Amino acid sequence: MPEFIYRINLSQMTAVKENIDNNLKGLGGRGLTSSIIEKEVPPRSHPLGKNNKLVFAPGLLAGTPAANSGRLSAGAKSPLTQTIKESNSGGTAAKLFAKTGIKALIIESIPEDKENWYGIRISPSAVKIEKTDLVGKGNFEVIKILSEKNNNTGIISIGTAGEMKMAAANISVKDPDGKIRSLGRGGLGAVMGSKRIKYIVIDSNDSNEVYIEDREKFKKASKKFAKTLLDHPVSGTGLPTYGTDVLINLLNEAGGLPTKNFSSGQFEGHDMISGEKMHNLILERGGKIKHGCHEGCVIKCSQIYNDADKNYVTSGFEYETIWATGANCGIDDLDILAKADSIMDDIGIDTIETGVAIAVAMEGKVLEFGDKKGFLNIIEKEIAQGTFLGRIIGAGAETTGKIFGVTRVPVVKGQGIPAYDPRAVKGIGITYATSTMGADHTAGYSVTANVLNVGGLVDPLKKEGQVELSRNLQIATAALDTAGLCIFVAFAVLDNKEAMSSLIEMLSAKSGTKMTENDITELGASVLKTEKRFNEKAGFHAEHDRLPEFFTEEPLPPHNVLWNFTDEEIDEFWNF
Amino acid sequence: MPEFIYRINLSQMTAVKENIDNNLKGLGGRGLTSSIIEKEVPPRSHPLGKNNKLVFAPGLLAGTPAANSGRLSAGAKSPLTQTIKESNSGGTAAKLFAKTGIKALIIESIPEDKENWYGIRISPSAVKIEKTDLVGKGNFEVIKILSEKNNNTGIISIGTAGEMKMAAANISVKDPDGKIRSLGRGGLGAVMGSKRIKYIVIDSNDSNEVYIEDREKFKKASKKFAKTLLDHPVSGTGLPTYGTDVLINLLNEAGGLPTKNFSSGQFEGHDMISGEKMHNLILERGGKIKHGCHEGCVIKCSQIYNDADKNYVTSGFEYETIWATGANCGIDDLDILAKADSIMDDIGIDTIETGVAIAVAMEGKVLEFGDKKGFLNIIEKEIAQGTFLGRIIGAGAETTGKIFGVTRVPVVKGQGIPAYDPRAVKGIGITYATSTMGADHTAGYSVTANVLNVGGLVDPLKKEGQVELSRNLQIATAALDTAGLCIFVAFAVLDNKEAMSSLIEMLSAKSGTKMTENDITELGASVLKTEKRFNEKAGFHAEHDRLPEFFTEEPLPPHNVLWNFTDEEIDEFWNF
Repeated sequence: MPEFIYRINLSQMTAVKENIDNNLKGLGGRGLTSSIIEKEVPPRSHPLGKNNKLVFAPGLLAGTPAANSGRLSAGAKSPLTQTIKESNSGGTAAKLFAKTGIKALIIESIPEDKENWYGIRISPSAVKIEKTDLVGKGNFEVIKILSEKNNNTGIISIGTAGEMKMAAANISVKDPDGKIRSLGRGGLGAVMGSKRIKYIVIDSNDSNEVYIEDREKFKKASKKFAKTLLDHPVSGTGLPTYGTDVLINLLNEAGGLPTKNFSSGQFEGHDMISGEKMHNLILERGGKIKHGCHEGCVIKCSQIYNDADKNYVTSGFEYETIWATGANCGIDDLDILAKADSIMDDIGIDTIETGVAIAVAMEGKVLEFGDKKGFLNIIEKEIAQGTFLGRIIGAGAETTGKIFGVTRVPVVKGQGIPAYDPRAVKGIGITYATSTMGADHTAGYSVTANVLNVGGLVDPLKKEGQVELSRNLQIATAALDTAGLCIFVAFAVLDNKEAMSSLIEMLSAKSGTKMTENDITELGASVLKTEKRFNEKAGFHAEHDRLPEFFTEEPLPPHNVLWNFTDEEIDEFWNF
Repeated sequence: MPEFIYRINLSQMTAVKENIDNNLKGLGGRGLTSSIIEKEVPPRSHPLGKNNKLVFAPGLLAGTPAANSGRLSAGAKSPLTQTIKESNSGGTAAKLFAKTGIKALIIESIPEDKENWYGIRISPSAVKIEKTDLVGKGNFEVIKILSEKNNNTGIISIGTAGEMKMAAANISVKDPDGKIRSLGRGGLGAVMGSKRIKYIVIDSNDSNEVYIEDREKFKKASKKFAKTLLDHPVSGTGLPTYGTDVLINLLNEAGGLPTKNFSSGQFEGHDMISGEKMHNLILERGGKIKHGCHEGCVIKCSQIYNDADKNYVTSGFEYETIWATGANCGIDDLDILAKADSIMDDIGIDTIETGVAIAVAMEGKVLEFGDKKGFLNIIEKEIAQGTFLGRIIGAGAETTGKIFGVTRVPVVKGQGIPAYDPRAVKGIGITYATSTMGADHTAGYSVTANVLNVGGLVDPLKKEGQVELSRNLQIATAALDTAGLCIFVAFAVLDNKEAMSSLIEMLSAKSGTKMTENDITELGASVLKTEKRFNEKAGFHAEHDRLPEFFTEEPLPPHNVLWNFTDEEIDEFWNF
């Protein structure tokens, strides 16, 4: 099946099929979105203006039988960070995209009329733009309405946060159960909202097969690959049993669980929000502890979380969400956090940025740490209704800090720092500082070697080895994001040579080339450099690869450690 | 009389007298504040944190008989722009500072207790820190209470905006009539608020004389200097008759009066808010058309503006204020604007930033352009009470734009663009883009040659000559700000050789050196380079010397002109 790009121009209301440039042919996912953004978007353009573009791309392995290959990437200039941005998630859309032969969907310009909202319908034969009256509705209702005629479609949508162009708005993707996965970070939902696109429906013929040059070789490699994932203790046992929330107790133990707006590394209520606690509640209430976010996932770190009456509340209830809204806001109640998670999914707002921003507001005396009622009120009333306070929180942690005159504002390049305190988990601090995306744990998840003893052990409290660790992981992650693989395959890849070799075999078999480990590294490095090039032209330089001042001045209990890298040490990161 | 620096450390509650470094001895005003900030403040520090410092310095000529030498400078890292910042104003403090022998007052750190507010009392014999209960009070009441015992003190204070650490909060200075002059731009009031300093009282012995090396020569030169100011048609006739508001009709005529958030260059209601209209109203209502903001001012562009019942409303009612809140918000009623001006003086918030931010909120549909009631409500209720909307506006135009998802946001380096549209007055556009202060008309007021035919004529609609014009003016202004002279002396300096030569004679006589015009230029250039050095270390580079995208895309009526400088053309500015 031939692969191509679809370019939607909203001022002309056209959808045009284009061939792919030769130099983009070896790319997918993040590599492709970042290359297109770097090439086509003026770096100083306003993220919500007509010169920004929103690009969707499934990974190189999307639609193949490769385990955990169902990530969909979106890219744009971010209204939260002003940098280039790629965000990805599971769900059903990536596979269906790939099966239509679309390597990338580029949405550019803004509708000339000032009011109408639009949807995009993609089928193997055509891409159409249609007016819609679904504006104002939450993601769950949008998915329900759009699924009425055909439940096998892929659906991408924004909630009301995206409509209001909140800088923390995300993009939602329907998962196999009609629930929601989120392209969470960087406000890409606001970019979609600025273009007045409420949804994208992908109605591909599921029986289409994506083209694989050597199908037999691919099949063998993918079997081997899946086995390595299942054999690894983290991806094969830990994550499917406790979900990502298994990290609450681990990080609390390590003294790196940011608590009450990064004022401590341990939360007294950690047991109330831990993965173990969640596991027990799920079993008691007839939920499901294992649940995949996309077809082909063998790890299944998601879950079905029910309330005390055994009614469904949420799924994809992640450690970072539970940390941001729990430990970081001083809220020790999983039921409240689950309800908040469900509402944020419906509104379409990044749970990490929202939690970090609310904690900053708590620091600014808008409400008390641990105020459960006030916390829930901000999410279900203020943000949902777009009140002035809701818009402040929805603009993210940095803006919230500016509004309330707070100095302890944990952000890098405008994006809220997630669930691992860089003073006590120093490798992730290097990732936050240097990532082209602003503070982003997924960009180079050094928690592996710092806390989980995966891929070796690098003492989280010492500086030694952290820059190299983060560099290697960021390069590898950029490649994985380009392949469209879930980041959790990295556990196996780091510990088991078979995982890497089978991954290389899959990529080789797919394209009919002979790839080496070095090719993967070069691919990842080249993606990072493309992103950095955009950021430099947008005005981001070494001075922006820094953590906020307070990390260097306020010792973090219980280890009473500071962030103590020199500028020169951090800048070593880019020596590749 | 020996000159020295006073350093107040708020965590130690100490006030220490220091000698002046030799390399700072030739500096005053902006040159001194910027040099101290560049040397002592970590460029990446949080502007509201303990590592930022607030520095006050009278100009080199403060306290001398030189006409219009009463400007007081304050400097810090700005919470609005994140750049270095100097802001200055008239009032009585500069002269009294100089008469105590204080070249600079450095306020550093933050009180260890978390709640108390403090005042600083300066006398020729001592500097004292005292607790105060004046917190929560407006500037007018603070000045009244502090003047009760002695009306001849200099008073510097912040209003409630500064207490709330709003990024647009300014610092107020008592003028000779007990009214208020403002160090307006860049949020220095928030820095003072972050240090919990409510006021500074300077109680000097007015009979002290500042040291002048050659008093006779100085006297002769200063007489000549004052005459050049009075002889010039702008400073001698235009400004004293109509105030700075004379510019409304001039800019409207030039098509460069930014209207309704920079969507047009002409305002249909210009006649209702013009200097001519104000002149007539003042005469009808028993006000005063001429009023100096500091002793020794011979220009007297301020005024006493009364209401229809002949009661005092405001003074120092400037063109930029009237533009920001008038034409830019579509409000065509001088009485409403005068009331707003008075409230903003009392709250202590920058009238330009506030007007620009409200217009952005109007663009974001928070209220309609021209909604007089809604406009006044934002100022007297929302901002004054620190509601969520008030805090949004108080955080400035850039943050307001982010909160409401607006793309037409006229800011450079986070500071709202003032009263001259850069598409139709291109020289000032170069100043906005390149100034070390963010968008700032006073930094290099090319309106002189672009509109007023002062210092020659440079066609405002063409690119030719604008970079050189702005460069020369920015260098000269940095020198004038260091001397502590009002920017309006520049009209005479640009048109009359006698003005420049007498200025050089005054500076030479003051210091007992033999200065040349070249020395003045070198002084100004060196101040700009010091400021740029700080900004670069804070992360500001050529990519930040740019105007917002919309100026390059939306033609400005009536001339339908765009901002059309290339990056290379703008960057020529720094070639000196």
